[in-house]
Amino acid sequence: MKLKEIDNNGTLQGYVLVKSCEKKTTKTGSTYLDMSISDGETDVVAKLWDFRAADTEKPPVNSLILVRGTLSTYNGQPQFKIDRWRPLNENDNVRMSDYVPSAAFEGEDMFRALMQLVASFRDAELKTLASAVLNEYKARILELPAAFRLHHAVRGGLLLHTLSICKLAEAVCALYVSADRDLLLCGAILHDIAKSEEFNLAPTGLVDSYSVPGTLIGHLVRGAMIVEELGRANGVSEDTLMLVEHMLISHHGLPEYGAAVRPLFLEAVLLSALDTLDANVYEVENVLKGVEPGGFSAKVWALEDRKFYNHGRRPVGTDVDFGWRVAREKEN
Amino acid sequence: MKLKEIDNNGTLQGYVLVKSCEKKTTKTGSTYLDMSISDGETDVVAKLWDFRAADTEKPPVNSLILVRGTLSTYNGQPQFKIDRWRPLNENDNVRMSDYVPSAAFEGEDMFRALMQLVASFRDAELKTLASAVLNEYKARILELPAAFRLHHAVRGGLLLHTLSICKLAEAVCALYVSADRDLLLCGAILHDIAKSEEFNLAPTGLVDSYSVPGTLIGHLVRGAMIVEELGRANGVSEDTLMLVEHMLISHHGLPEYGAAVRPLFLEAVLLSALDTLDANVYEVENVLKGVEPGGFSAKVWALEDRKFYNHGRRPVGTDVDFGWRVAREKEN
Amino acid sequence: MKLKEIDNNGTLQGYVLVKSCEKKTTKTGSTYLDMSISDGETDVVAKLWDFRAADTEKPPVNSLILVRGTLSTYNGQPQFKIDRWRPLNENDNVRMSDYVPSAAFEGEDMFRALMQLVASFRDAELKTLASAVLNEYKARILELPAAFRLHHAVRGGLLLHTLSICKLAEAVCALYVSADRDLLLCGAILHDIAKSEEFNLAPTGLVDSYSVPGTLIGHLVRGAMIVEELGRANGVSEDTLMLVEHMLISHHGLPEYGAAVRPLFLEAVLLSALDTLDANVYEVENVLKGVEPGGFSAKVWALEDRKFYNHGRRPVGTDVDFGWRVAREKEN
Amino acid sequence: MKLKEIDNNGTLQGYVLVKSCEKKTTKTGSTYLDMSISDGETDVVAKLWDFRAADTEKPPVNSLILVRGTLSTYNGQPQFKIDRWRPLNENDNVRMSDYVPSAAFEGEDMFRALMQLVASFRDAELKTLASAVLNEYKARILELPAAFRLHHAVRGGLLLHTLSICKLAEAVCALYVSADRDLLLCGAILHDIAKSEEFNLAPTGLVDSYSVPGTLIGHLVRGAMIVEELGRANGVSEDTLMLVEHMLISHHGLPEYGAAVRPLFLEAVLLSALDTLDANVYEVENVLKGVEPGGFSAKVWALEDRKFYNHGRRPVGTDVDFGWRVAREKEN
Amino acid sequence: MKLKEIDNNGTLQGYVLVKSCEKKTTKTGSTYLDMSISDGETDVVAKLWDFRAADTEKPPVNSLILVRGTLSTYNGQPQFKIDRWRPLNENDNVRMSDYVPSAAFEGEDMFRALMQLVASFRDAELKTLASAVLNEYKARILELPAAFRLHHAVRGGLLLHTLSICKLAEAVCALYVSADRDLLLCGAILHDIAKSEEFNLAPTGLVDSYSVPGTLIGHLVRGAMIVEELGRANGVSEDTLMLVEHMLISHHGLPEYGAAVRPLFLEAVLLSALDTLDANVYEVENVLKGVEPGGFSAKVWALEDRKFYNHGRRPVGTDVDFGWRVAREKEN
Amino acid sequence: MKLKEIDNNGTLQGYVLVKSCEKKTTKTGSTYLDMSISDGETDVVAKLWDFRAADTEKPPVNSLILVRGTLSTYNGQPQFKIDRWRPLNENDNVRMSDYVPSAAFEGEDMFRALMQLVASFRDAELKTLASAVLNEYKARILELPAAFRLHHAVRGGLLLHTLSICKLAEAVCALYVSADRDLLLCGAILHDIAKSEEFNLAPTGLVDSYSVPGTLIGHLVRGAMIVEELGRANGVSEDTLMLVEHMLISHHGLPEYGAAVRPLFLEAVLLSALDTLDANVYEVENVLKGVEPGGFSAKVWALEDRKFYNHGRRPVGTDVDFGWRVAREKEN
Repeated sequence: MKLKEIDNNGTLQGYVLVKSCEKKTTKTGSTYLDMSISDGETDVVAKLWDFRAADTEKPPVNSLILVRGTLSTYNGQPQFKIDRWRPLNENDNVRMSDYVPSAAFEGEDMFRALMQLVASFRDAELKTLASAVLNEYKARILELPAAFRLHHAVRGGLLLHTLSICKLAEAVCALYVSADRDLLLCGAILHDIAKSEEFNLAPTGLVDSYSVPGTLIGHLVRGAMIVEELGRANGVSEDTLMLVEHMLISHHGLPEYGAAVRPLFLEAVLLSALDTLDANVYEVENVLKGVEPGGFSAKVWALEDRKFYNHGRRPVGTDVDFGWRVAREKEN
Repeated sequence: MKLKEIDNNGTLQGYVLVKSCEKKTTKTGSTYLDMSISDGETDVVAKLWDFRAADTEKPPVNSLILVRGTLSTYNGQPQFKIDRWRPLNENDNVRMSDYVPSAAFEGEDMFRALMQLVASFRDAELKTLASAVLNEYKARILELPAAFRLHHAVRGGLLLHTLSICKLAEAVCALYVSADRDLLLCGAILHDIAKSEEFNLAPTGLVDSYSVPGTLIGHLVRGAMIVEELGRANGVSEDTLMLVEHMLISHHGLPEYGAAVRPLFLEAVLLSALDTLDANVYEVENVLKGVEPGGFSAKVWALEDRKFYNHGRRPVGTDVDFGWRVAREKEN
Repeated sequence: MKLKEIDNNGTLQGYVLVKSCEKKTTKTGSTYLDMSISDGETDVVAKLWDFRAADTEKPPVNSLILVRGTLSTYNGQPQFKIDRWRPLNENDNVRMSDYVPSAAFEGEDMFRALMQLVASFRDAELKTLASAVLNEYKARILELPAAFRLHHAVRGGLLLHTLSICKLAEAVCALYVSADRDLLLCGAILHDIAKSEEFNLAPTGLVDSYSVPGTLIGHLVRGAMIVEELGRANGVSEDTLMLVEHMLISHHGLPEYGAAVRPLFLEAVLLSALDTLDANVYEVENVLKGVEPGGFSAKVWALEDRKFYNHGRRPVGTDVDFGWRVAREKEN
Repeated sequence: MKLKEIDNNGTLQGYVLVKSCEKKTTKTGSTYLDMSISDGETDVVAKLWDFRAADTEKPPVNSLILVRGTLSTYNGQPQFKIDRWRPLNENDNVRMSDYVPSAAFEGEDMFRALMQLVASFRDAELKTLASAVLNEYKARILELPAAFRLHHAVRGGLLLHTLSICKLAEAVCALYVSADRDLLLCGAILHDIAKSEEFNLAPTGLVDSYSVPGTLIGHLVRGAMIVEELGRANGVSEDTLMLVEHMLISHHGLPEYGAAVRPLFLEAVLLSALDTLDANVYEVENVLKGVEPGGFSAKVWALEDRKFYNHGRRPVGTDVDFGWRVAREKEN
Repeated sequence: MKLKEIDNNGTLQGYVLVKSCEKKTTKTGSTYLDMSISDGETDVVAKLWDFRAADTEKPPVNSLILVRGTLSTYNGQPQFKIDRWRPLNENDNVRMSDYVPSAAFEGEDMFRALMQLVASFRDAELKTLASAVLNEYKARILELPAAFRLHHAVRGGLLLHTLSICKLAEAVCALYVSADRDLLLCGAILHDIAKSEEFNLAPTGLVDSYSVPGTLIGHLVRGAMIVEELGRANGVSEDTLMLVEHMLISHHGLPEYGAAVRPLFLEAVLLSALDTLDANVYEVENVLKGVEPGGFSAKVWALEDRKFYNHGRRPVGTDVDFGWRVAREKEN
Repeated sequence: MKLKEIDNNGTLQGYVLVKSCEKKTTKTGSTYLDMSISDGETDVVAKLWDFRAADTEKPPVNSLILVRGTLSTYNGQPQFKIDRWRPLNENDNVRMSDYVPSAAFEGEDMFRALMQLVASFRDAELKTLASAVLNEYKARILELPAAFRLHHAVRGGLLLHTLSICKLAEAVCALYVSADRDLLLCGAILHDIAKSEEFNLAPTGLVDSYSVPGTLIGHLVRGAMIVEELGRANGVSEDTLMLVEHMLISHHGLPEYGAAVRPLFLEAVLLSALDTLDANVYEVENVLKGVEPGGFSAKVWALEDRKFYNHGRRPVGTDVDFGWRVAREKEN
């Protein structure tokens, strides 16, 4: 049972994510916990009254717990009173990814799709390189978000973003006969690989903050270093490495957006354009989610403070259709 | 027979385009014509000695003429001596488009492809609007270049560019389920329609200069006016016109690139991105055409003075593959 | 009687504008209305205790009501206790414009002044065009503010701003003999005409927010469309329309300030300069109103975050002197 | 008699300005002078054949000389053969200002007009200050150009520019009652006073180059220093000097245009706006002088590379009408 | 005894700086003072209960007072209850500089060090100029901060900053033989001299706000005026003054950072570079003071919003080592 | 004997550098070589008449040759007529570095000075890292210029530039006790190490063009890769490598100047500032070399188009004084 399914004063027992938890004192001097919890669909304020235990006994933020309590209304807002709670134990069969924003596809599925693309490469060196890097970093990227606060800041966001670019890249190569498909796809697959080193992750799998190397070096240069190291170890030629490394360090397009150099050949130009396009589509869809048809979003800092318009002609989503998923369309 | 097929001192009779023509005086005082001519494949300096006729009798620049003469070498450079020439008459069966840079597809074919796309619209208003504008402007855009000096500055360049964007737009809409295909395609088809008023054309069909209204108003705002006028005349609703007009006046993306407003909904963002992408691909391919593999192009002003690298992995073309043409690949 | 005329604990009955109104709960659990009201000169916090009616019975924000109550002091601040109130009925003889910031001149007077300028045109086409547009839009602009939050954001601000520019334009044309007076005045009169479509107005007549077409198209391009439509309908030539349209879409001067094109002839350059000058004078005067001589204003975002200095040599006003008004000077 | 009045092969004796003069050698080994001369209306190439004197005997560039010779045509261009020449002596009654581009008004007349404005000041300190500076610098500014290559780069251009701004300032103060007329006029009169130290002048009275202090300090800061020095010497208060100095060092408006600080009170804002406006009007008129109606000028670097349009509705001039001159209008 | 030395509920009598002081009312209606005080090392919240005196009897903000009271803990935060207090009288032997952030060196010591540098000049004019200015402004700069909120915003900060630049300048001149040591040092010593007119100081000796002339003229131009006036009075040549004045008005390097002109000779380039370097070092050290090794600072607005990293390899200080002070190193 | 030592029509036999060489044809039809040669001090035009050999027999550009010929004057310019010439053979004892612009110090001396600095490091890891890289790259950097056309574009320029920064770094660390000397010096020594891969060198040892990897990857990122590879191979910790790599990829300071990230700790900030300072000093000195005292240089593109002033107070040099060289001062 979910929070949204119960009536006022209804009782709930279930797993929730602790999003915040602070010890406070009432006017009468008793201590309590002021919390925010989520059942994966609904966020609600929660109170645990008369909390006298030590601070270390508080439910840890960003962890899943089992709660039992009652939902009521206070000052016009829903509030959940926690009667009992406990941390998870090994018998609880719940997944963190059901309680935090996540991509609509499983990490394993998306990873397999990328590996299939690699398998289709005609260029042996690029195939070797992409396989080597993907295999080496698989565990680190399977559930990784693509960003801290911007586009694809959800579990699995990195692979979702990567796969979207690959789909666009295939359409582009079908149109422009000069573009080298394998090179563009290889760059697309590897372009954000070093985001695996760029973040400190919270227990939820979302990004908690930028890591020190993520800040001092950044995923563009670190990505090129990874390509250099694994490429050399696997016998890929210097010329090939140079091209892929260029794509990685230039994929932000402009120096002021973090590109170490500007894109200087066709596939690098394309990768940068498709990366921006996919990120922008995600951002625009995301800010429009809570906007009524006919209304404007708040200003979007990452898109030059534009306010976007929801013309209401299509349902707004932040999903893509890779052809092999249960379509969102059907459900709606 | 073409210039490149004849030997030194060989004789040629054939049609050529007059690219420049100036009357000069030799040291001995006789007057002659110093010309540049092209047979559609090769440009060559030409001389017409002892020219004593009035200036009005000179071969008009940018016209096709029939010449007879001899090719020789002067100072290490080829030079064509014109013995006889005459302007075209009605019996000459030649087409200007064979003598100036032109898109690889016929205007009629590309226009038909656009009309087929329009026919596929489910949105009746957008179908009405796009049909009305295309039919009204057909004659003016069939062979129109897309630019003065930049991307697609060839006969038929406008339709080629428009069709390429449409192909990309279809791929994008297949991926992002939030995007409204008909709206995006309609914007793509109409986005440059007012380029038909922006240029003064040379007799070659290429752009000679910007027109006065093209400079004072510009094709973005004029395009919106055309949509407004033809849309109202055909009963399209204000809301629909507003969306399409917004796409037209925002499609350059940034104010400093000429956008009257920034793109403010998903399809406007997409149109602007795809317009830029197609233009950039054309430019990059174009500047790389004369560059050896392993070499860099000259600085490209329109692309922030970058020099582009020809990595030599694919033959460089400025063509696209719409699926229904005799593939360039085959020939190579 | 006005709020500023009554003593502490004095009683007042009179019309006030409801600027905000929120239902709240006291610590003892009773509900009350926490309001901000204005009598056109003074803003004051007001309380309506023991409000038990439905929300729909609250005094509507931005409406005029008749109140009776007492002025007292709470925490050092004046506070008005409302004993009774009622909405206006048809017998109340009050004007909204007396309760919101308004230009010092009547809309009808300013409109008439503009029409007199038009009547003085020697150019028949420009006279026709300006008359047609003014007459068509008279009702919509008579009391319109010129902006949301910036310069001339008062009732009647649009006409005040327009008339000021016209006065400057006449002085400029008297000095520079190359400038075409009729063309410049026509551009000045019409330059902001489409602000009539750019705002959603509050019941006060002030701007509540930008409208959808105001955001997606903007008053520059919409203005040009209005000129195109009414100009054509009245037989104005294309050349004349092109010049006026250019002035409208370029009058913000720089693309980053919203100009679709930069001003490209003398009168367009002048219009843009005078528009900026009048707006800046208004802004500077406005921010200096509350500043002591010798002091600086807060940072003004619209003027590059400058803080302006009140040197105290002249009384600060935001008024202009058109020669036909009761001079502010006299009163002071 | 003037050059344009004589026929081909006609003879002329008259005063001309030497604009350039270079000694060259013919193929046959004889030396001659290749010159450019002007009679104040027409520029023409001139040759002085068989020149065997020392270099120091050449006619000095930028000086007036008396010549006698014949006008003929060479290669389709007019050419003047100098038979005899001599430098001026005390009996020659000619004025340099008739041979170089000059303002349409006499320096003395314009200076007197400025002094009359100063005489009208009600503020005694500003009157003292403006008088002191004008009198001190009279000789240095009477014929001074306002610039090297940009606006008002003619003899007397500085006073012409200054007077134009004053005229605009009076109109502005008549409109905006907050503006302090004396302060604005004082700033306008003194704003470019230190241009008297900024240039190295050619013998023609035009600017040859920037001076060292003009480059290292600039006329904004030097102007403030002049005000400080002469103001203190004449007992003007620190507060008044501070205001005028601020207007001088801020009158270029933006730091990137040379303003040491941004304008921070109303009159400083106005001075900067009117200075820009008058300079821009001059520039636009100037570039349009040689442009046919319906045509565009070349790109104007100082005005962001815009090309300006001559709509042909008014004769183009670079003159202003101060009301007391023989109107240009009458002549045309 | 200092605050940090006393236990909870311990009593303290001592001098403190009043950093803020506001009269408030308890729920029970009694009035009290809510203050922030500092003993020069520790800041703490202080309460003076039952304060019934007039507002003018409150301890003045930014003054030193003698207090007696008790330190306790409230809501986990230390709080000082003031039992008694009095303002300073002549018998109190305390110095403001011990209670506000101050440079590690005495003003007199730093001033003497500058005078010794001047004494070492070989160039007599520069020696005269620097001596004259330093002596004239000694009293005003001895304890002056160098800024409002940015680098060296501490008592004595101006001289500390000046001396640091001089030390760097000597090293630079030892390396680059083209650089003129006396000129560079003279510019360094005088570059911020007019900061003595730029601030309104609080009683603490720190900057309270910018002064009117500091805002309207600024310390760059005012500095040049001081050099001009004292230089002329002491017979320094115009050429020398011009060079020094140029260094002063250009030392911010870029117009957008306030430079009236850009640095145009070697010593001006060097002064600007060293000024920036010393300011940046101070800023970076300052923001890192409260950052744990391995952590990042907050965004630093004055340094393009960068977050700086404390790598922890050296203790962070904002001090410099001039060789003649008790080294901080020793103490640690 | 050198060119500047011989009289007109004097004969010279000696080694010269061929700077350009083009085959041309006289009016009479004979072929000759039009060359520019240098004896290391003087550049002169040279002619080799009646050259009938094959193109491959021409003296190779950028090579040293032995010539014999006569110096004469043509059209006021010196011209050298070559009678005989031959390429070098093994017996010729000449060094290219005497014929092209070179640093005043030997590469070996400068390299040794750097190694001594490294030997002084207390930090074992940094000592290991710097030694390893210097030893690995010694041969490639010993005579390397630091740039193509900008600062230190001379043989040995890279080491000269590196050593200058180290000298400044030592002075800076002596002043600021927070700065880590070993870290700053290590960054300084390695910051341009990958310039060894960035250029294609001419036979003169000067830069002919940028290499492909120099353009696609750049010396900042390549430098970090070198540090990563050699650092890991020598057991340097990840944390230390991260700091040094950050210094390398950030040392251009601003993204628009090529920095992949902005400097984010003190030593990175210092390295970037000192790098810029040394480059700017070199540039300013270099452009002032040919400028008379009291004059201005041409515009310097790399320094924002400034024209620099030669105040003439010191002899202009582009040399530094490391203390251990024969002082230039002495000679002058």
